[in-house]
Amino acid sequence: MKGSFITFEGGEGSGKSTQIRLLADELVKSGKVVVTTREPGGTPGAEEIRKLLVTGSTDKWDKTTETLLFFASRRDHLMKKVFPALEMGAVVLCDRFADSTMAYQGYGYGDDSTQQSLIKELYAQTIGDFKPNLTILLDIPVEVGLIRSRRAGNVELRFEDRELAFHERLRRAYLMMAKAEPERFAVIDATQPIPKIHQEILKVIEKRSLFAEKPLVKTCLKKNKIR
Amino acid sequence: MKGSFITFEGGEGSGKSTQIRLLADELVKSGKVVVTTREPGGTPGAEEIRKLLVTGSTDKWDKTTETLLFFASRRDHLMKKVFPALEMGAVVLCDRFADSTMAYQGYGYGDDSTQQSLIKELYAQTIGDFKPNLTILLDIPVEVGLIRSRRAGNVELRFEDRELAFHERLRRAYLMMAKAEPERFAVIDATQPIPKIHQEILKVIEKRSLFAEKPLVKTCLKKNKIR
Repeated sequence: MKGSFITFEGGEGSGKSTQIRLLADELVKSGKVVVTTREPGGTPGAEEIRKLLVTGSTDKWDKTTETLLFFASRRDHLMKKVFPALEMGAVVLCDRFADSTMAYQGYGYGDDSTQQSLIKELYAQTIGDFKPNLTILLDIPVEVGLIRSRRAGNVELRFEDRELAFHERLRRAYLMMAKAEPERFAVIDATQPIPKIHQEILKVIEKRSLFAEKPLVKTCLKKNKIR
Repeated sequence: MKGSFITFEGGEGSGKSTQIRLLADELVKSGKVVVTTREPGGTPGAEEIRKLLVTGSTDKWDKTTETLLFFASRRDHLMKKVFPALEMGAVVLCDRFADSTMAYQGYGYGDDSTQQSLIKELYAQTIGDFKPNLTILLDIPVEVGLIRSRRAGNVELRFEDRELAFHERLRRAYLMMAKAEPERFAVIDATQPIPKIHQEILKVIEKRSLFAEKPLVKTCLKKNKIR
């Protein structure tokens, strides 16, 4: 596909949506067609599934049901929004993708090899070989992230409400996944000031020649006096 | 598990719900604990997923998304209602189960081997070896079934609205599946009068010694003067 698919991952309060907004603004200014989206959700159907997933008690669904719902929502999102946008040559910035499912359902509730296999199998069967061109992992200590998330007045608390150990396992899982796929992941310290994080993201995009055919990121960096 | 799981399959208007009600009444009278339920749905969570599946336009979901949603709803239904009831020794009568997913998503939209593999894989990964003790297939010519279904004032028309060829493929798929697993399926001619169909179902249960330890069906048959 002609476009680029950049996903943002990280625990609660890691600042994903802020960074997506900043990057989108930058890319739009540089003449790119940008589509920002999120998972679960991003399409009317997937948002309906999102509602089932993010509200209600923490034991509303068992892990397997939850994983199936995430992949149903993901498939709808890819087919109706992400793939068509990439075909048109857009840059798609997505708040969470399949790595979130692996981190949360595969590791967060406890290291669960059955669930990890199910997630890999579902990915292969419903998404195939497609994967993000770049995954930005915004890494932040759990306590800092949770305080930020609550301060932001988040009402979708089904995942935030879990115990601290859950979020610790989540963070470890993300870092492990990033280590296993360094060509796709970039880990960024999300305790840094917002503009600094934004600059680091631009540098990663530049370094990995993500838009090599049009060196627009160079222009962004220059314009913003970022080295 | 101690109980028995009997599923009812068939195209639209084949009279599944009527037959489930009649059989449930009979079994209850004979002292069995009976749970009647349906798919998609049967639990609060699964009913929420059902709403996403049965309303809206026919192209609301692609086939794969639809299959994932059916299995999410099925998993919730099994974990929270069917398995606990079977553990208690109940007879669970279920309006549609996994055979419906195979018939509709695997064959109804066209003979689709990718979808058939996905369904088998999802079954293995999320349900395992568990299967119904008996599956009653109420077989009816497509035109007759659709007229009945519309007459009944059905408002969940997302599946009924598809073209006639879809429903023909569905019927053929069901009959093929029944032929492949004769020890689990019983095919019953659903054009017969309601009481006659009910009698045939009781005979099948009797013949297959489904409640062998308590010959309650014999009692039912006797009481109703059915040979």
